[in-house]
Amino acid sequence: MTTSDSDKCWGECMDVAVEVACRAGKVVQEAVKHEKSVSTKSTPTDLVTEADQQVEELIISTLRDKFPSHRFIGEESSAAGEKCILTDSPSWIIDPIDGTCNFVHNFPMVAVSIGFAVKKELEFGVIYHCFDGTLYTARKGHGAFCNGVRIQVSKEKDVSKALILTEIGAKRDPATLNIFSGNIMKLLSAPAHGVRIIGSSTLALCLIATGAAEAYYQYGLHCWDIAAAAVIIREAGGVVIDTSGGPLDLMSRRVVAAGTHEMASYIVQQLQPISYERDDSDPGVQK
Amino acid sequence: MTTSDSDKCWGECMDVAVEVACRAGKVVQEAVKHEKSVSTKSTPTDLVTEADQQVEELIISTLRDKFPSHRFIGEESSAAGEKCILTDSPSWIIDPIDGTCNFVHNFPMVAVSIGFAVKKELEFGVIYHCFDGTLYTARKGHGAFCNGVRIQVSKEKDVSKALILTEIGAKRDPATLNIFSGNIMKLLSAPAHGVRIIGSSTLALCLIATGAAEAYYQYGLHCWDIAAAAVIIREAGGVVIDTSGGPLDLMSRRVVAAGTHEMASYIVQQLQPISYERDDSDPGVQK
Repeated sequence: MTTSDSDKCWGECMDVAVEVACRAGKVVQEAVKHEKSVSTKSTPTDLVTEADQQVEELIISTLRDKFPSHRFIGEESSAAGEKCILTDSPSWIIDPIDGTCNFVHNFPMVAVSIGFAVKKELEFGVIYHCFDGTLYTARKGHGAFCNGVRIQVSKEKDVSKALILTEIGAKRDPATLNIFSGNIMKLLSAPAHGVRIIGSSTLALCLIATGAAEAYYQYGLHCWDIAAAAVIIREAGGVVIDTSGGPLDLMSRRVVAAGTHEMASYIVQQLQPISYERDDSDPGVQK
Repeated sequence: MTTSDSDKCWGECMDVAVEVACRAGKVVQEAVKHEKSVSTKSTPTDLVTEADQQVEELIISTLRDKFPSHRFIGEESSAAGEKCILTDSPSWIIDPIDGTCNFVHNFPMVAVSIGFAVKKELEFGVIYHCFDGTLYTARKGHGAFCNGVRIQVSKEKDVSKALILTEIGAKRDPATLNIFSGNIMKLLSAPAHGVRIIGSSTLALCLIATGAAEAYYQYGLHCWDIAAAAVIIREAGGVVIDTSGGPLDLMSRRVVAAGTHEMASYIVQQLQPISYERDDSDPGVQK
Protein backbone atom coordinates (compact mmCIF):
# COMPACT_ATOMS: atom_id res chain seq x y z
CA MET A 1 0.00 0.00 0.00
CA THR A 2 1.33 3.51 -0.79
CA THR A 3 1.21 6.24 1.88
CA SER A 4 -1.79 7.85 0.22
CA ASP A 5 -3.63 4.51 -0.02
CA SER A 6 -3.03 3.75 3.65
CA ASP A 7 -4.00 7.32 4.55
CA LYS A 8 -7.35 6.79 2.81
CA CYS A 9 -7.77 3.35 4.33
CA TRP A 10 -7.06 4.47 7.93
CA GLY A 11 -9.45 7.37 7.33
CA GLU A 12 -12.18 4.85 6.54
CA CYS A 13 -11.26 2.84 9.63
CA MET A 14 -11.62 6.00 11.67
CA ASP A 15 -15.11 6.67 10.27
CA VAL A 16 -16.12 3.20 11.43
CA ALA A 17 -14.49 3.83 14.83
CA VAL A 18 -16.54 7.01 15.32
CA GLU A 19 -19.74 5.20 14.41
CA VAL A 20 -19.09 2.24 16.71
CA ALA A 21 -17.83 4.39 19.63
CA CYS A 22 -21.04 6.45 19.56
CA ARG A 23 -23.17 3.33 19.29
CA ALA A 24 -21.30 1.64 22.18
CA GLY A 25 -21.47 4.87 24.19
CA LYS A 26 -25.25 4.91 23.87
CA VAL A 27 -25.40 1.31 25.11
CA VAL A 28 -23.37 2.40 28.15
CA GLN A 29 -25.67 5.44 28.65
CA GLU A 30 -28.63 3.05 28.73
CA ALA A 31 -26.85 0.57 31.04
CA VAL A 32 -26.19 3.38 33.56
CA LYS A 33 -29.91 3.42 34.38
CA HIS A 34 -30.01 -0.25 35.39
CA GLU A 35 -28.69 -2.36 38.24
CA LYS A 36 -25.11 -3.50 37.47
CA SER A 37 -23.70 -6.95 37.96
CA VAL A 38 -20.26 -6.17 39.43
CA SER A 39 -17.25 -8.50 39.88
CA THR A 40 -13.63 -7.79 40.78
CA LYS A 41 -10.45 -8.44 38.77
CA SER A 42 -6.88 -7.94 40.06
CA THR A 43 -7.86 -6.36 43.42
CA PRO A 44 -11.09 -5.74 45.42
CA THR A 45 -11.25 -2.25 43.89
CA ASP A 46 -10.51 -3.31 40.27
CA LEU A 47 -14.10 -3.67 39.10
CA VAL A 48 -15.73 -5.13 36.04
CA THR A 49 -19.40 -5.38 35.07
CA GLU A 50 -21.32 -7.45 32.56
CA ALA A 51 -21.72 -4.23 30.57
CA ASP A 52 -17.92 -3.94 30.11
CA GLN A 53 -17.86 -7.38 28.53
CA GLN A 54 -20.97 -6.86 26.40
CA VAL A 55 -19.83 -3.47 25.10
CA GLU A 56 -16.35 -4.80 24.22
CA GLU A 57 -17.96 -7.70 22.38
CA LEU A 58 -20.18 -5.26 20.47
CA ILE A 59 -17.20 -3.12 19.45
CA ILE A 60 -14.85 -5.96 18.52
CA SER A 61 -17.43 -7.99 16.62
CA THR A 62 -18.44 -4.93 14.57
CA LEU A 63 -14.82 -4.09 13.76
CA ARG A 64 -13.82 -7.72 13.06
CA ASP A 65 -16.68 -8.07 10.57
CA LYS A 66 -15.38 -5.06 8.65
CA PHE A 67 -11.66 -5.65 9.12
CA PRO A 68 -11.14 -9.40 9.52
CA SER A 69 -7.35 -9.21 9.12
CA HIS A 70 -6.85 -6.65 11.89
CA ARG A 71 -5.79 -7.46 15.46
CA PHE A 72 -7.65 -6.44 18.62
CA ILE A 73 -6.45 -5.59 22.10
CA GLY A 74 -9.35 -5.03 24.51
CA GLU A 75 -9.51 -4.56 28.25
CA GLU A 76 -11.93 -7.41 28.83
CA SER A 77 -10.44 -9.82 26.28
CA SER A 78 -7.08 -9.29 28.01
CA ALA A 79 -8.64 -9.88 31.42
CA ALA A 80 -10.06 -13.11 29.98
CA GLY A 81 -6.55 -14.26 29.08
CA GLU A 82 -5.98 -13.00 25.52
CA LYS A 83 -2.45 -11.85 24.83
CA CYS A 84 -1.84 -8.14 24.97
CA ILE A 85 0.96 -7.78 22.43
CA LEU A 86 1.30 -4.93 19.95
CA THR A 87 2.57 -6.19 16.57
CA ASP A 88 3.14 -4.41 13.25
CA SER A 89 -0.35 -5.40 12.06
CA PRO A 90 -3.17 -2.84 12.06
CA SER A 91 -4.34 -3.07 15.69
CA TRP A 92 -7.38 -1.76 17.53
CA ILE A 93 -6.86 -0.93 21.19
CA ILE A 94 -10.19 -0.75 23.00
CA ASP A 95 -11.52 0.25 26.40
CA PRO A 96 -15.27 -0.42 26.29
CA ILE A 97 -15.97 1.41 29.59
CA ASP A 98 -13.15 3.58 30.88
CA GLY A 99 -14.03 4.52 34.43
CA THR A 100 -15.78 1.27 35.40
CA CYS A 101 -15.86 2.27 39.07
CA ASN A 102 -17.54 5.54 38.07
CA PHE A 103 -19.96 3.58 35.89
CA VAL A 104 -20.87 1.33 38.83
CA HIS A 105 -21.71 4.43 40.90
CA ASN A 106 -23.30 6.49 38.08
CA PHE A 107 -20.53 9.03 38.68
CA PRO A 108 -20.69 11.02 35.44
CA MET A 109 -17.18 10.41 34.05
CA VAL A 110 -17.26 7.34 31.83
CA ALA A 111 -15.97 6.88 28.28
CA VAL A 112 -15.60 4.49 25.38
CA SER A 113 -12.06 4.65 24.00
CA ILE A 114 -10.92 3.25 20.64
CA GLY A 115 -7.33 3.68 19.47
CA PHE A 116 -5.75 2.36 16.28
CA ALA A 117 -2.09 1.59 15.61
CA VAL A 118 -0.18 0.40 12.55
CA LYS A 119 3.45 -0.73 12.73
CA LYS A 120 3.24 0.10 16.43
CA GLU A 121 2.50 3.76 15.59
CA LEU A 122 -0.76 5.26 16.84
CA GLU A 123 -2.79 6.46 13.84
CA PHE A 124 -6.05 7.74 15.33
CA GLY A 125 -8.10 7.89 18.50
CA VAL A 126 -11.84 8.19 19.18
CA ILE A 127 -13.27 8.77 22.67
CA TYR A 128 -16.95 9.11 23.52
CA HIS A 129 -18.00 10.59 26.88
CA CYS A 130 -21.01 8.44 27.79
CA PHE A 131 -22.66 10.93 30.17
CA ASP A 132 -22.62 14.13 28.14
CA GLY A 133 -22.18 12.69 24.65
CA THR A 134 -18.99 14.65 23.90
CA LEU A 135 -16.94 13.08 21.11
CA TYR A 136 -13.15 13.54 21.01
CA THR A 137 -11.37 12.55 17.79
CA ALA A 138 -7.91 12.90 16.29
CA ARG A 139 -5.98 11.41 13.41
CA LYS A 140 -2.24 11.70 13.01
CA GLY A 141 -1.44 14.83 11.02
CA HIS A 142 -5.06 16.00 10.86
CA GLY A 143 -5.60 17.81 14.19
CA ALA A 144 -7.69 17.04 17.28
CA PHE A 145 -11.37 17.81 17.70
CA CYS A 146 -14.06 17.93 20.36
CA ASN A 147 -17.50 17.55 18.75
CA GLY A 148 -15.92 18.61 15.48
CA VAL A 149 -14.35 21.80 16.87
CA ARG A 150 -10.53 22.01 16.83
CA ILE A 151 -8.97 21.76 20.31
CA GLN A 152 -5.61 22.84 21.67
CA VAL A 153 -3.63 22.11 24.82
CA SER A 154 -2.69 24.74 27.40
CA LYS A 155 0.63 26.43 26.65
CA GLU A 156 1.38 27.11 30.34
CA LYS A 157 4.95 26.28 31.39
CA ASP A 158 4.80 27.38 35.03
CA VAL A 159 3.67 24.70 37.49
CA SER A 160 2.46 27.35 39.94
CA LYS A 161 -0.27 28.13 37.40
CA ALA A 162 -1.07 24.50 36.62
CA LEU A 163 -4.00 22.22 37.27
CA ILE A 164 -2.72 18.65 37.44
CA LEU A 165 -4.72 15.45 36.98
CA THR A 166 -3.92 11.97 38.16
CA GLU A 167 -5.66 8.70 39.02
CA ILE A 168 -5.41 6.12 41.77
CA GLY A 169 -4.12 2.80 40.43
CA ALA A 170 -5.53 -0.59 41.42
CA LYS A 171 -2.78 -1.30 43.99
CA ARG A 172 -3.72 -0.19 47.51
CA ASP A 173 -0.90 -1.60 49.66
CA PRO A 174 0.58 0.90 52.14
CA ALA A 175 3.89 1.30 50.26
CA THR A 176 2.10 2.11 46.98
CA LEU A 177 -0.33 4.49 48.68
CA ASN A 178 2.59 6.28 50.32
CA ILE A 179 4.29 6.94 47.02
CA PHE A 180 0.96 7.88 45.40
CA SER A 181 0.27 10.38 48.14
CA GLY A 182 3.87 11.69 48.24
CA ASN A 183 3.68 12.52 44.52
CA ILE A 184 0.45 14.49 44.97
CA MET A 185 1.80 16.35 48.03
CA LYS A 186 4.95 17.34 46.15
CA LEU A 187 2.90 18.91 43.36
CA LEU A 188 0.49 20.60 45.79
CA SER A 189 3.49 22.07 47.62
CA ALA A 190 4.98 23.40 44.37
CA PRO A 191 2.30 24.89 44.70
CA ALA A 192 0.30 23.81 41.68
CA HIS A 193 -3.15 25.45 41.49
CA GLY A 194 -4.67 22.10 42.28
CA VAL A 195 -4.84 18.36 41.73
CA ARG A 196 -7.97 16.63 40.43
CA ILE A 197 -8.92 12.94 40.40
CA ILE A 198 -11.97 12.20 38.23
CA GLY A 199 -11.81 8.41 37.97
CA SER A 200 -11.41 8.12 34.19
CA SER A 201 -7.86 8.18 32.78
CA THR A 202 -9.20 8.57 29.26
CA LEU A 203 -11.38 11.60 30.05
CA ALA A 204 -8.62 13.14 32.19
CA LEU A 205 -6.33 12.89 29.15
CA CYS A 206 -9.05 14.49 26.98
CA LEU A 207 -9.13 17.40 29.44
CA ILE A 208 -5.38 17.86 28.84
CA ALA A 209 -6.13 17.93 25.09
CA THR A 210 -8.75 20.67 25.49
CA GLY A 211 -6.42 22.76 27.69
CA ALA A 212 -8.68 22.41 30.78
CA ALA A 213 -5.67 21.15 32.76
CA GLU A 214 -1.95 21.42 32.25
CA ALA A 215 -0.63 17.95 33.05
CA TYR A 216 -1.60 14.37 33.77
CA TYR A 217 0.45 11.53 35.17
CA GLN A 218 -0.35 8.02 36.23
CA TYR A 219 1.16 4.73 37.22
CA GLY A 220 -0.95 1.61 36.74
CA LEU A 221 -3.08 2.55 33.76
CA HIS A 222 -3.25 0.29 30.69
CA CYS A 223 -2.53 0.61 26.97
CA TRP A 224 -6.30 0.91 26.28
CA ASP A 225 -6.50 3.94 28.60
CA ILE A 226 -3.77 5.79 26.70
CA ALA A 227 -3.91 4.68 23.04
CA ALA A 228 -6.74 6.86 21.71
CA ALA A 229 -6.03 9.78 24.04
CA ALA A 230 -2.32 9.93 23.14
CA VAL A 231 -3.17 10.74 19.50
CA ILE A 232 -5.73 13.32 20.62
CA ILE A 233 -3.27 15.11 22.94
CA ARG A 234 -0.44 15.09 20.38
CA GLU A 235 -2.72 16.42 17.63
CA ALA A 236 -3.87 19.12 20.07
CA GLY A 237 -0.21 20.19 20.35
CA GLY A 238 0.70 18.37 23.58
CA VAL A 239 3.25 15.81 24.65
CA VAL A 240 2.74 12.27 25.90
CA ILE A 241 5.85 10.61 27.31
CA ASP A 242 7.05 7.98 29.74
CA THR A 243 7.33 8.90 33.42
CA SER A 244 11.12 8.50 32.99
CA GLY A 245 11.10 11.36 30.47
CA GLY A 246 11.73 9.01 27.52
CA PRO A 247 9.31 8.17 24.69
CA LEU A 248 5.90 6.75 25.58
CA ASP A 249 5.89 2.98 25.92
CA LEU A 250 2.26 2.00 25.42
CA MET A 251 2.65 -1.23 27.39
CA SER A 252 4.59 0.21 30.35
CA ARG A 253 1.53 1.24 32.40
CA ARG A 254 2.86 4.71 33.09
CA VAL A 255 2.51 8.07 31.42
CA VAL A 256 3.04 11.80 31.70
CA ALA A 257 0.99 14.03 29.41
CA ALA A 258 1.15 17.81 29.27
CA GLY A 259 0.51 20.83 27.11
CA THR A 260 4.20 21.77 26.99
CA HIS A 261 7.54 19.98 27.13
CA GLU A 262 8.52 22.19 30.07
CA MET A 263 5.48 21.15 32.10
CA ALA A 264 6.00 17.46 31.24
CA SER A 265 9.69 17.65 32.25
CA TYR A 266 8.80 19.30 35.54
CA ILE A 267 6.32 16.53 36.39
CA VAL A 268 8.84 13.82 35.38
CA GLN A 269 11.39 15.29 37.80
CA GLN A 270 8.95 15.30 40.73
CA LEU A 271 7.60 11.78 40.48
CA GLN A 272 8.66 8.83 42.52
CA PRO A 273 7.78 5.71 40.49
CA ILE A 274 5.25 3.02 41.33
CA SER A 275 5.93 -0.27 39.62
CA TYR A 276 3.20 -2.26 37.86
CA GLU A 277 3.56 -5.39 35.73
CA ARG A 278 3.68 -4.49 32.01
CA ASP A 279 0.58 -5.02 29.88
CA ASP A 280 2.55 -7.31 27.53
CA SER A 281 4.22 -9.36 30.24
CA ASP A 282 3.43 -13.02 29.78
CA PRO A 283 5.83 -15.77 30.74
CA GLY A 284 4.85 -17.84 27.70
CA VAL A 285 5.41 -15.04 25.20
CA GLN A 286 8.67 -13.80 23.65
CA LYS A 287 8.82 -10.03 24.30
CA MET B 1 -46.47 35.54 59.32
CA THR B 2 -48.17 32.13 59.74
CA THR B 3 -46.39 28.93 58.65
CA SER B 4 -48.44 28.73 55.51
CA ASP B 5 -47.78 32.41 54.65
CA SER B 6 -44.06 31.96 55.11
CA ASP B 7 -44.18 28.72 53.12
CA LYS B 8 -45.74 30.61 50.22
CA CYS B 9 -43.33 33.51 50.63
CA TRP B 10 -40.18 31.34 50.68
CA GLY B 11 -41.56 29.50 47.65
CA GLU B 12 -41.68 32.82 45.79
CA CYS B 13 -38.12 33.57 46.94
CA MET B 14 -37.07 30.22 45.54
CA ASP B 15 -38.62 30.95 42.14
CA VAL B 16 -36.54 34.13 42.01
CA ALA B 17 -33.44 32.18 43.12
CA VAL B 18 -33.88 29.70 40.25
CA GLU B 19 -34.28 32.51 37.75
CA VAL B 20 -31.24 34.45 38.98
CA ALA B 21 -29.03 31.32 39.35
CA CYS B 22 -29.71 30.35 35.72
CA ARG B 23 -29.09 33.91 34.54
CA ALA B 24 -25.84 34.16 36.54
CA GLY B 25 -24.80 30.69 35.32
CA LYS B 26 -25.16 31.80 31.72
CA VAL B 27 -22.96 34.84 32.43
CA VAL B 28 -20.33 32.42 33.83
CA GLN B 29 -20.71 30.16 30.76
CA GLU B 30 -20.00 33.15 28.54
CA ALA B 31 -17.08 34.32 30.72
CA VAL B 32 -15.45 30.87 30.39
CA LYS B 33 -14.69 31.65 26.74
CA HIS B 34 -12.70 34.80 27.53
CA GLU B 35 -9.36 35.61 29.11
CA LYS B 36 -9.74 35.85 32.91
CA SER B 37 -8.30 38.50 35.16
CA VAL B 38 -7.06 36.41 38.13
CA SER B 39 -5.96 37.59 41.59
CA THR B 40 -5.26 35.67 44.80
CA LYS B 41 -6.98 35.91 48.22
CA SER B 42 -5.86 34.09 51.38
CA THR B 43 -3.09 32.02 49.72
CA PRO B 44 -1.37 31.82 46.29
CA THR B 45 -3.82 29.05 45.34
CA ASP B 46 -6.99 30.79 46.63
CA LEU B 47 -8.05 32.45 43.38
CA VAL B 48 -10.59 35.09 42.48
CA THR B 49 -11.48 36.61 39.11
CA GLU B 50 -13.30 39.75 38.04
CA ALA B 51 -16.13 37.43 36.95
CA ASP B 52 -16.63 36.20 40.56
CA GLN B 53 -17.17 39.76 41.69
CA GLN B 54 -19.38 40.74 38.75
CA VAL B 55 -21.59 37.66 39.06
CA GLU B 56 -22.02 38.14 42.81
CA GLU B 57 -22.97 41.75 42.21
CA LEU B 58 -25.51 40.65 39.59
CA ILE B 59 -27.06 38.11 41.97
CA ILE B 60 -27.13 40.30 45.07
CA SER B 61 -28.41 43.42 43.31
CA THR B 62 -31.24 41.44 41.69
CA LEU B 63 -32.24 39.86 45.01
CA ARG B 64 -31.86 43.10 46.99
CA ASP B 65 -34.19 44.90 44.55
CA LYS B 66 -36.87 42.28 45.18
CA PHE B 67 -36.22 41.65 48.87
CA PRO B 68 -34.76 44.85 50.34
CA SER B 69 -35.17 43.71 53.95
CA HIS B 70 -33.24 40.47 53.48
CA ARG B 71 -29.60 39.95 54.42
CA PHE B 72 -26.85 38.70 52.10
CA ILE B 73 -23.75 36.64 52.72
CA GLY B 74 -21.63 36.30 49.59
CA GLU B 75 -18.17 34.89 48.98
CA GLU B 76 -16.83 38.03 47.36
CA SER B 77 -18.57 40.52 49.67
CA SER B 78 -17.04 38.63 52.59
CA ALA B 79 -13.60 38.67 50.95
CA ALA B 80 -14.08 42.45 50.58
CA GLY B 81 -14.59 42.75 54.35
CA GLU B 82 -18.36 42.41 54.86
CA LYS B 83 -19.32 40.52 57.98
CA CYS B 84 -20.24 36.91 57.55
CA ILE B 85 -22.75 36.47 60.36
CA LEU B 86 -25.93 34.43 60.15
CA THR B 87 -28.80 36.13 62.00
CA ASP B 88 -32.49 35.21 62.36
CA SER B 89 -33.39 37.45 59.38
CA PRO B 90 -34.13 35.88 56.01
CA SER B 91 -30.59 35.44 54.62
CA TRP B 92 -29.23 34.59 51.19
CA ILE B 93 -25.93 32.70 51.15
CA ILE B 94 -24.28 32.98 47.76
CA ASP B 95 -21.32 31.53 45.92
CA PRO B 96 -21.27 33.24 42.51
CA ILE B 97 -18.62 30.87 41.07
CA ASP B 98 -17.97 27.73 43.07
CA GLY B 99 -14.83 26.15 41.65
CA THR B 100 -13.01 29.37 40.77
CA CYS B 101 -9.76 27.50 40.11
CA ASN B 102 -11.66 25.22 37.69
CA PHE B 103 -13.23 28.30 36.10
CA VAL B 104 -9.77 29.84 35.57
CA HIS B 105 -8.67 26.66 33.75
CA ASN B 106 -11.97 25.99 31.92
CA PHE B 107 -12.10 22.70 33.84
CA PRO B 108 -15.76 21.76 33.44
CA MET B 109 -16.90 21.71 37.08
CA VAL B 110 -18.15 25.16 38.04
CA ALA B 111 -21.42 26.17 39.69
CA VAL B 112 -23.53 29.06 40.95
CA SER B 113 -24.86 28.28 44.42
CA ILE B 114 -27.68 30.14 46.18
CA GLY B 115 -28.89 29.05 49.61
CA PHE B 116 -31.57 30.67 51.76
CA ALA B 117 -31.96 30.54 55.54
CA VAL B 118 -34.56 31.92 57.97
CA LYS B 119 -34.01 31.89 61.71
CA LYS B 120 -30.69 30.18 60.96
CA GLU B 121 -32.55 27.25 59.35
CA LEU B 122 -31.82 26.44 55.72
CA GLU B 123 -35.05 26.73 53.71
CA PHE B 124 -34.00 26.06 50.11
CA GLY B 125 -31.01 25.66 47.82
CA VAL B 126 -30.48 26.24 44.11
CA ILE B 127 -27.32 25.18 42.27
CA TYR B 128 -26.63 25.69 38.57
CA HIS B 129 -23.82 23.71 36.87
CA CYS B 130 -22.38 26.29 34.49
CA PHE B 131 -20.80 23.83 32.04
CA ASP B 132 -23.63 21.42 31.38
CA GLY B 133 -26.59 23.55 32.48
CA THR B 134 -27.83 21.05 35.09
CA LEU B 135 -30.06 22.68 37.72
CA TYR B 136 -30.26 21.21 41.24
CA THR B 137 -33.04 22.47 43.51
CA ALA B 138 -34.56 21.58 46.86
CA ARG B 139 -36.89 23.18 49.37
CA LYS B 140 -37.32 21.96 52.92
CA GLY B 141 -40.10 19.38 53.00
CA HIS B 142 -40.62 19.38 49.23
CA GLY B 143 -37.92 16.97 47.95
CA ALA B 144 -34.78 17.44 45.87
CA PHE B 145 -34.61 17.66 42.09
CA CYS B 146 -32.12 17.60 39.24
CA ASN B 147 -33.58 19.35 36.18
CA GLY B 148 -37.01 18.81 37.70
CA VAL B 149 -36.55 15.06 38.24
CA ARG B 150 -36.63 13.80 41.82
CA ILE B 151 -33.22 12.65 43.10
CA GLN B 152 -32.18 10.32 45.91
CA VAL B 153 -28.95 9.59 47.74
CA SER B 154 -27.21 6.21 47.73
CA LYS B 155 -28.38 3.93 50.52
CA GLU B 156 -25.03 2.10 50.73
CA LYS B 157 -23.74 1.57 54.27
CA ASP B 158 -20.57 -0.39 53.53
CA VAL B 159 -17.48 1.74 52.94
CA SER B 160 -15.88 -1.01 50.86
CA LYS B 161 -18.54 -0.27 48.24
CA ALA B 162 -18.29 3.51 48.52
CA LEU B 163 -17.04 6.25 46.27
CA ILE B 164 -15.88 9.14 48.45
CA LEU B 165 -15.42 12.77 47.44
CA THR B 166 -13.29 15.44 49.03
CA GLU B 167 -11.57 18.71 48.16
CA ILE B 168 -8.20 20.26 48.86
CA GLY B 169 -8.53 23.33 51.09
CA ALA B 170 -6.63 26.57 50.57
CA LYS B 171 -3.94 25.75 53.17
CA ARG B 172 -0.89 24.06 51.68
CA ASP B 173 1.59 23.98 54.57
CA PRO B 174 3.28 20.58 55.10
CA ALA B 175 1.38 19.80 58.33
CA THR B 176 -2.01 20.43 56.69
CA LEU B 177 -1.07 18.48 53.57
CA ASN B 178 0.04 15.55 55.74
CA ILE B 179 -3.32 15.35 57.49
CA PHE B 180 -5.18 15.87 54.20
CA SER B 181 -3.25 13.03 52.61
CA GLY B 182 -3.50 10.78 55.71
CA ASN B 183 -7.29 11.06 55.63
CA ILE B 184 -7.44 10.04 51.97
CA MET B 185 -5.01 7.14 52.47
CA LYS B 186 -7.07 5.82 55.40
CA LEU B 187 -10.22 5.72 53.26
CA LEU B 188 -8.40 4.19 50.28
CA SER B 189 -7.02 1.49 52.60
CA ALA B 190 -10.51 0.71 53.95
CA PRO B 191 -10.64 0.02 50.96
CA ALA B 192 -13.24 2.39 49.59
CA HIS B 193 -13.90 1.91 45.87
CA GLY B 194 -12.21 5.22 45.24
CA VAL B 195 -11.69 8.85 46.13
CA ARG B 196 -12.46 11.68 43.70
CA ILE B 197 -11.47 15.35 43.78
CA ILE B 198 -13.35 17.47 41.24
CA GLY B 199 -12.54 20.99 42.43
CA SER B 200 -16.07 22.16 43.23
CA SER B 201 -17.42 21.48 46.74
CA THR B 202 -20.92 22.44 45.65
CA LEU B 203 -21.02 20.06 42.69
CA ALA B 204 -19.39 17.29 44.73
CA LEU B 205 -22.22 17.69 47.25
CA CYS B 206 -24.77 17.57 44.41
CA LEU B 207 -23.24 14.24 43.34
CA ILE B 208 -23.91 12.93 46.85
CA ALA B 209 -27.52 14.08 46.45
CA THR B 210 -27.93 12.19 43.16
CA GLY B 211 -26.40 9.02 44.62
CA ALA B 212 -23.37 9.14 42.30
CA ALA B 213 -21.09 8.93 45.35
CA GLU B 214 -21.63 7.76 48.90
CA ALA B 215 -19.86 10.37 51.03
CA TYR B 216 -18.17 13.75 51.00
CA TYR B 217 -16.01 15.41 53.60
CA GLN B 218 -14.00 18.58 53.69
CA TYR B 219 -12.11 20.92 55.94
CA GLY B 220 -11.70 24.51 54.79
CA LEU B 221 -14.84 25.05 52.75
CA HIS B 222 -17.16 28.01 53.47
CA CYS B 223 -20.81 28.51 54.37
CA TRP B 224 -21.59 29.50 50.75
CA ASP B 225 -20.21 26.12 49.55
CA ILE B 226 -22.55 24.15 51.83
CA ALA B 227 -25.74 26.20 52.31
CA ALA B 228 -27.65 25.36 49.13
CA ALA B 229 -26.23 21.83 48.83
CA ALA B 230 -27.11 20.90 52.43
CA VAL B 231 -30.83 21.36 51.71
CA ILE B 232 -30.51 19.42 48.46
CA ILE B 233 -28.77 16.44 50.14
CA ARG B 234 -31.20 16.35 53.07
CA GLU B 235 -34.22 16.52 50.78
CA ALA B 236 -32.66 13.70 48.73
CA GLY B 237 -32.66 11.62 51.91
CA GLY B 238 -29.06 12.14 53.01
CA VAL B 239 -27.28 13.50 56.06
CA VAL B 240 -25.09 16.58 56.41
CA ILE B 241 -23.25 16.85 59.71
CA ASP B 242 -20.17 18.27 61.36
CA THR B 243 -16.89 16.35 61.07
CA SER B 244 -17.16 15.77 64.84
CA GLY B 245 -20.39 13.82 64.28
CA GLY B 246 -22.55 16.62 65.77
CA PRO B 247 -25.05 18.82 63.92
CA LEU B 248 -23.82 20.86 60.95
CA ASP B 249 -22.42 24.24 61.94
CA LEU B 250 -22.66 26.30 58.75
CA MET B 251 -19.83 28.62 59.81
CA SER B 252 -17.40 25.95 61.05
CA ARG B 253 -15.76 25.32 57.64
CA ARG B 254 -16.07 21.56 57.93
CA VAL B 255 -18.60 19.02 56.83
CA VAL B 256 -19.38 15.35 56.33
CA ALA B 257 -22.23 14.49 53.96
CA ALA B 258 -23.42 11.01 53.10
CA GLY B 259 -26.35 9.00 51.87
CA THR B 260 -26.72 7.12 55.15
CA HIS B 261 -26.05 7.77 58.84
CA GLU B 262 -23.85 4.67 58.93
CA MET B 263 -21.62 5.94 56.12
CA ALA B 264 -21.41 9.43 57.67
CA SER B 265 -20.46 7.94 61.07
CA TYR B 266 -17.78 5.79 59.50
CA ILE B 267 -16.21 8.82 57.79
CA VAL B 268 -16.40 10.86 61.01
CA GLN B 269 -14.47 8.14 62.85
CA GLN B 270 -11.68 8.03 60.26
CA LEU B 271 -10.94 11.74 59.93
CA GLN B 272 -8.12 13.60 61.57
CA PRO B 273 -9.22 17.26 61.74
CA ILE B 274 -7.67 20.23 59.95
CA SER B 275 -8.36 23.52 61.62
CA TYR B 276 -9.49 26.60 59.72
CA GLU B 277 -10.65 29.96 61.07
CA ARG B 278 -14.47 30.09 61.27
CA ASP B 279 -16.39 32.02 58.64
CA ASP B 280 -17.97 34.20 61.33
CA SER B 281 -14.77 34.88 63.25
CA ASP B 282 -14.15 38.58 63.53
CA PRO B 283 -12.38 40.10 66.50
CA GLY B 284 -14.75 43.08 66.42
CA VAL B 285 -17.93 41.03 66.38
CA GLN B 286 -19.75 39.32 69.23
CA LYS B 287 -20.18 35.67 68.22
